[in-house]
Amino acid sequence: MPKRFDAELLQLKKRLLAMGAIAEDMIAETIAALVHRDETRFEKVRAEEEQLDGLQKEVDDETVRLIAVYTPVASDLRLLLMATRINAELERIGDRAITICKSCGRLLAEPALKPLVDLPRMAEIAQSMVRAVLTAFVEGDADAALRVIAADDEVDNLNDQIIRELITYMLADAKNIQRALSLVFISRAFERIGDHAVNIAEDVVYVVRGEDIRHTHA
Amino acid sequence: MPKRFDAELLQLKKRLLAMGAIAEDMIAETIAALVHRDETRFEKVRAEEEQLDGLQKEVDDETVRLIAVYTPVASDLRLLLMATRINAELERIGDRAITICKSCGRLLAEPALKPLVDLPRMAEIAQSMVRAVLTAFVEGDADAALRVIAADDEVDNLNDQIIRELITYMLADAKNIQRALSLVFISRAFERIGDHAVNIAEDVVYVVRGEDIRHTHA
Repeated sequence: MPKRFDAELLQLKKRLLAMGAIAEDMIAETIAALVHRDETRFEKVRAEEEQLDGLQKEVDDETVRLIAVYTPVASDLRLLLMATRINAELERIGDRAITICKSCGRLLAEPALKPLVDLPRMAEIAQSMVRAVLTAFVEGDADAALRVIAADDEVDNLNDQIIRELITYMLADAKNIQRALSLVFISRAFERIGDHAVNIAEDVVYVVRGEDIRHTHA
Repeated sequence: MPKRFDAELLQLKKRLLAMGAIAEDMIAETIAALVHRDETRFEKVRAEEEQLDGLQKEVDDETVRLIAVYTPVASDLRLLLMATRINAELERIGDRAITICKSCGRLLAEPALKPLVDLPRMAEIAQSMVRAVLTAFVEGDADAALRVIAADDEVDNLNDQIIRELITYMLADAKNIQRALSLVFISRAFERIGDHAVNIAEDVVYVVRGEDIRHTHA
């Protein structure tokens, strides 16, 4: 494979890293909007989603071009196929952030149900999972990818805990039900962001080790 | 491109159709288990998920092999990249069915909250979307794919309606909250199955028309 290909592959990886950074920022802004009850941050999240969409299309086109021009060997092919999948996962993380913004919009129109402690913690872990898994992809580090998969347990546990707590609020007073339900949806959306990071991590392990763990670790 | 390649591509498409049929059946069995309160059906759903996982790996390996052996032209490349994505979407539909089974398990341990009418209707539409979108893929029919995208509105509306109704059950009696919440999660999971079918449909339109509609129709 010519050096030119390696340089182009590096460019593609950088583009995915840029997408990851945007997705991360969307998570950070979304939870900040909710915690600080600051709707103005949603604007930024929406602008970032448009950026992400544009980059997704570029990465897809670029992948097809690289395969067509360089007819890469099987291992590089596998890497390029994964790039288009990581691409799709990142775009979906952006979609989740938008979904959260919509639920937040309704919540911020009413008084706060409770101080948010576990939810920001969950968002923080989800955000760090996104960062870690893209680094793992670029560096071809399967161990780092496996650590991302392990971190998802904490996200799942926090989600369960948050939902259990919100149910107690619903039980205590019917007036809490709507707001508690919005928070349940938000919690589930952050949990899904963790799942997207896990999907990417599984792909990284597959590319690096040629080992399919998509259906074994659960 | 040699005839041999076309024959292999057809095989790959057939394998995706087989995966689609399994995913469809998982949806049908899951909702039947819930409506008829028949836990024995979950066994079949779990067995089908294992089948789906096995097929997913085969399709991925096959795609890499086809690209490596035939160095296809850009349009066929695009098709093969989409095949790996459709593959991933189908596997995720299977995952959603498993998630629903878990929620159902808890629900069936208690008396029924209410007769289920909208939920089976939603499951039925989701199932027909999965069937229609795979036919659209195999036949390269962008119009049929666009109809799948349009059908998703009905799924979304049903989901909204179901959640609104379940909230009234929660408000009426705190004893309903846990069961109503399980049904909310199940409804959302069916709604997500519709989203996966839409993701596939967008890919089909992209492959057939070279037109990226992933971020425009919403």
